[in-house]
Amino acid sequence: MSSSGLGIIEERGALISSLAEDLEQLLEWLSGYGKQESGGVTRLLYSEAWKEAQQALAERMRVSGLVPSFDQVGNLYGRLEGTGVALSSILTGSHVDTVKNGGLYDGAFGIAAGIVALDYLKKHFGAPRRSLEVVSFCEEEGSRFPIAYWGSGSVTGRFKLEDAAGVADMDGVRLEDAMRQAGFGAEGSHAGRGAAGPSKAERRDIAAFVEIHVEQGIVLEREQLQIGVVEAIVGQQRYTVTVTGEANHAGTTPMVWRKDAMRGASKMINWLLDAAAQQGAPLVATAGYMEVRPNVTNVIPREVAFTVDVRHTDERALELFCSRFRCCFEEIAASLGLGLHIKHWMDTSPVYMDEQLTRQVEQICERNGIAHRRMVSGAGHDVQELQSICPSAMIFVPSRAGISHSPLEHTDSLQLAEGTVVLIELLYQLAYGEGSL
Amino acid sequence: MSSSGLGIIEERGALISSLAEDLEQLLEWLSGYGKQESGGVTRLLYSEAWKEAQQALAERMRVSGLVPSFDQVGNLYGRLEGTGVALSSILTGSHVDTVKNGGLYDGAFGIAAGIVALDYLKKHFGAPRRSLEVVSFCEEEGSRFPIAYWGSGSVTGRFKLEDAAGVADMDGVRLEDAMRQAGFGAEGSHAGRGAAGPSKAERRDIAAFVEIHVEQGIVLEREQLQIGVVEAIVGQQRYTVTVTGEANHAGTTPMVWRKDAMRGASKMINWLLDAAAQQGAPLVATAGYMEVRPNVTNVIPREVAFTVDVRHTDERALELFCSRFRCCFEEIAASLGLGLHIKHWMDTSPVYMDEQLTRQVEQICERNGIAHRRMVSGAGHDVQELQSICPSAMIFVPSRAGISHSPLEHTDSLQLAEGTVVLIELLYQLAYGEGSL
Repeated sequence: MSSSGLGIIEERGALISSLAEDLEQLLEWLSGYGKQESGGVTRLLYSEAWKEAQQALAERMRVSGLVPSFDQVGNLYGRLEGTGVALSSILTGSHVDTVKNGGLYDGAFGIAAGIVALDYLKKHFGAPRRSLEVVSFCEEEGSRFPIAYWGSGSVTGRFKLEDAAGVADMDGVRLEDAMRQAGFGAEGSHAGRGAAGPSKAERRDIAAFVEIHVEQGIVLEREQLQIGVVEAIVGQQRYTVTVTGEANHAGTTPMVWRKDAMRGASKMINWLLDAAAQQGAPLVATAGYMEVRPNVTNVIPREVAFTVDVRHTDERALELFCSRFRCCFEEIAASLGLGLHIKHWMDTSPVYMDEQLTRQVEQICERNGIAHRRMVSGAGHDVQELQSICPSAMIFVPSRAGISHSPLEHTDSLQLAEGTVVLIELLYQLAYGEGSL
Repeated sequence: MSSSGLGIIEERGALISSLAEDLEQLLEWLSGYGKQESGGVTRLLYSEAWKEAQQALAERMRVSGLVPSFDQVGNLYGRLEGTGVALSSILTGSHVDTVKNGGLYDGAFGIAAGIVALDYLKKHFGAPRRSLEVVSFCEEEGSRFPIAYWGSGSVTGRFKLEDAAGVADMDGVRLEDAMRQAGFGAEGSHAGRGAAGPSKAERRDIAAFVEIHVEQGIVLEREQLQIGVVEAIVGQQRYTVTVTGEANHAGTTPMVWRKDAMRGASKMINWLLDAAAQQGAPLVATAGYMEVRPNVTNVIPREVAFTVDVRHTDERALELFCSRFRCCFEEIAASLGLGLHIKHWMDTSPVYMDEQLTRQVEQICERNGIAHRRMVSGAGHDVQELQSICPSAMIFVPSRAGISHSPLEHTDSLQLAEGTVVLIELLYQLAYGEGSL
């Protein structure tokens, strides 16, 4: 590798254009599976659209000279065999499932970039030292079943097949039934296809994982940068706060005798958002959902329920902020004579990416003159699962206006290609080089 | 009249018991028209239940020796003819319509008390000098058609028959059609029945109006009083406030770049309710209704709409407070970069009761040793319409726990009777005495 990047790249502009075209075609083609009238895409786990997409991707991998295989839960791998016998693999990719009526890029881009990257590396450098694999994780969003990261969490061993028991979708369909009907599970017809042999989901043979993804935020666009080098994924805590007072006539009840749940809720939310704004990045806090009862103009609200979503990359700081808001909410409720119930229903810890890999991504950007910054991901990703079993890195490309989980989600194909160049160079270093891995 | 109250009342306890029994029976009987499974009552304007109730009341009046008559809009009068030819009438009563699934007392009590009072006066004193009339106003709540006080407002001349044009209920039924089908309107079959002759709704022959009603608030119960002497009915202003920001990802959008409609709304409501609490009685302010969009835990709210209901007995103070909150909301929206739209959709002025009549009510309470206080009504009543054409007074009895517009609405029958004794004595002074009217 020369100091100016991949030795093979003589005409950088031509490469970018060519990659942009390939990526655009691949994403357009993949969006055909689950395409909605709105222009958005819906590929819920184990649905028909999802099955067709995974089958089509397996075929596309085969055409590229990769060996496709499914594991028991439906994760799809495309493998480019390495020459170094007994060396563990370098993995890249993202998730194939979408939210309802989602965009064309979330998840799909990471798979497309992986396929394009392996195409390029195989064509220009032949067989790698370490096997290279692109993965299409079966599920990340948790949009159909309330079990986000079912795909990557099964790879790390956090989820076992048995964890499917008792999980059902909104229509009451059980996860294990949906999985079996899609051809997966312990006796699934797909599991074991391909060269990798019968394949349980859990793996211990991955040397490193790299995920490339759209930012889903507005930082890169605002700062006119091409690449976000993700150093951490925030931890999240989510709560439902229920404030209880007494419904009374809005005209006949003096202020001094009111137990107005809305007064308590507005004071709490005002405190929460002011405190979060004052503390600033990387802390964020959101009250996105509220329900008022009875919700009538001339009746003092009896009950107000709202959600609190707090995120931070530092676990201690996250804990401290959440303790503070809970104390403050208790004080507000007590001072107004209101009841308070705080339900804590989500708690994920922050995850730090592998520092050496992260530094390698930065150096690639620097050498190629790509405008970049270190940043945190405010959303969760498969990489946070993989980091628990192998050194992992994450690369962001800009999202237009920060829009995500929407048919309006968009990233310019040249920006997709810039990110893919960084991915290609990192995979080259990891799979072809004599690096420390 | 002796200084200890009605001369005829020798055994006060026996009178109260007897009145309590009569009132309880009458209210129970009337609640049979429109009774719901919940135990509540629904009598929407011109509905079958409403028609049956008015017809039954007309018959009940006739049995009591009153002459019943309907006017063109469906207000029902029961008249006890006075001896003083050409003297205008003394009117008492309230409204027969209810909210959906309302209580047994709101409106109905004022009609029942009027019938019981006229029964008593006729039995003990014979024909009055001034004619005495009990009225069952056709509509006060505005629960079916968006035209509250249609009944009493037609009596004062604020509404004309033509105002029915263009008014429809939620099912698209036009007010004029519903009115005609119930037998009212310009050519209605009911209009003109009875001794009063063909009767337009507007009247100029009322010397005084007295309305007795349940408080629908908690003041009397909290202060352990029997009677509220209403000196004023609050003015009301109602608004819908819409705060507009930008929906964004709750994780990936730094606090500093957010345009969080919920942050603006919570700051506004917090200001509003704190300012109202600080200013105190008779001002009240309520944010009873809120709608959040998209209302999802992990999305920063794009739009929050909420209602503001402000009431005060002093028009200037009401105006000032509303101007203040509007200025403050503008400042909050500007400081957070949010859009703001304030729709002002209700504006009624405070109404003061006739001071001389109000003083008479107080004196009756004092002479009878009835625990009472002057107070304001935080809700609107028919009396505020009548006060524009004749001296008017309002008497409150306690509401258990302040509950109203609910099947749980309740007032002890002995408390109803205490109020009715005050009404009887006031009507005696006005119709039989040689008072200043």
